[in-house]
Amino acid sequence: MTTILGIDTSSYRLGVSVCKDGQVIAEYSTWLKKNHALRLMPAVEHVLQDVDLKPADLDAIAVAKGPGSYTGVRMAVTTAKSLAWALKIPLIPLSTLAVMAEAGRYFDGMIVPLIDARRGTVFAACYQSTQDGTILEKEAEKHQLLADLIEQLKTMNQRILFVGEDVSLHQEWIQAELGDQAMFTPGALPSARAGALCLLALNQEPMENVHAFTPDYHRLPEAEVNWQHEQQRNETERSGKENGVNRY
Amino acid sequence: MTTILGIDTSSYRLGVSVCKDGQVIAEYSTWLKKNHALRLMPAVEHVLQDVDLKPADLDAIAVAKGPGSYTGVRMAVTTAKSLAWALKIPLIPLSTLAVMAEAGRYFDGMIVPLIDARRGTVFAACYQSTQDGTILEKEAEKHQLLADLIEQLKTMNQRILFVGEDVSLHQEWIQAELGDQAMFTPGALPSARAGALCLLALNQEPMENVHAFTPDYHRLPEAEVNWQHEQQRNETERSGKENGVNRY
Repeated sequence: MTTILGIDTSSYRLGVSVCKDGQVIAEYSTWLKKNHALRLMPAVEHVLQDVDLKPADLDAIAVAKGPGSYTGVRMAVTTAKSLAWALKIPLIPLSTLAVMAEAGRYFDGMIVPLIDARRGTVFAACYQSTQDGTILEKEAEKHQLLADLIEQLKTMNQRILFVGEDVSLHQEWIQAELGDQAMFTPGALPSARAGALCLLALNQEPMENVHAFTPDYHRLPEAEVNWQHEQQRNETERSGKENGVNRY
Repeated sequence: MTTILGIDTSSYRLGVSVCKDGQVIAEYSTWLKKNHALRLMPAVEHVLQDVDLKPADLDAIAVAKGPGSYTGVRMAVTTAKSLAWALKIPLIPLSTLAVMAEAGRYFDGMIVPLIDARRGTVFAACYQSTQDGTILEKEAEKHQLLADLIEQLKTMNQRILFVGEDVSLHQEWIQAELGDQAMFTPGALPSARAGALCLLALNQEPMENVHAFTPDYHRLPEAEVNWQHEQQRNETERSGKENGVNRY
């Protein structure tokens, strides 16, 4: 494996990177509330052209598989799957939180990348930096109440570095609960580097069956939840009718 | 001050970034042995266009002023000066080493960004990360023998994080001298972020007199050294002649 294209649209961030022979050679990111659908492929094309690569030179596609905004994550994942399929190269899906955790390299304590998931909930995971700067997952990522996460972190008795642009939404609350135990990455310089995504991909097993891959939402999109409720209601209705009872 | 364009060509790295209202909104970097002269302005144009900005929207230009390769540093500095002059906006020059030091944020020990300057010498400085993640300069940058720097660092009795792509040239030597005291940023993901350059600029006083600015070479380019020798020789010759002595 020599040349990897990395793409990430898990949030407002649009990230594209290229890693060649183990070295990141290009990294492009924007953080704008603009349409990823219109901007992702032109960005990929521009970056590849600038580093003198053709799509046929790529050996794998790395993609941030979420968690993150549904439409955001879906955009990068769909593009990555299409490219991998068309170019007949493997796909390497990576956790968006793992990419964010790289911003905490060298931090002595728990690194907690966090993405807001509304209604008091967050997507989060816990990582730790080893003596040589490698980052290890300590608590698997999950969708949880921020209040529960804070309670769990309180018991850890070590400093916590909260990573990510969404942290600012809850910084006041976290600070009130954790005091000096809590630190925050500067929101002004986004934490997730497109280049880090590409590099993490070097240590991952690629997926050969591109079509089997789905993003990590860690919860169902609202549309799917509604659909399931609808299905259940229909099911109940039907079985009610079959039992000769019509509740409507 | 609201919108800043940052440019950096201190090495093979070509970096362009945009910071708006205190937030980095775009960051583009490549690390290639390709002609910066041909690639810098197209990169600036592409990034500005992608984030819907016109040159007239810029309030300042931030530039990595070196140390670094002569031709590299000169390219960004000349472009930055020209843009600042044409747009009638201030220039904010920043140390390339300070931008690199940002990669060591959260490191508990001395952060030493280092650029190779050939013949056993380096450009280097020492920084330290405070409890809240701010990075402070501890030893001003200078051009020195790497051997001298290593001896100085040995006496510091704390862990040292060497930052920069050039570190790999000397890693074996440094490791042999400093052992476990030394750590190294991963060369695969370049340490200097174009976005960090823009953010550092927010805390700097801009230069109003754009033309007065020259890059920080910390030593004279070889051509200038030769020219000075030539001048001295001519001077000696002339004064020799004036004293009635012609040594040639």
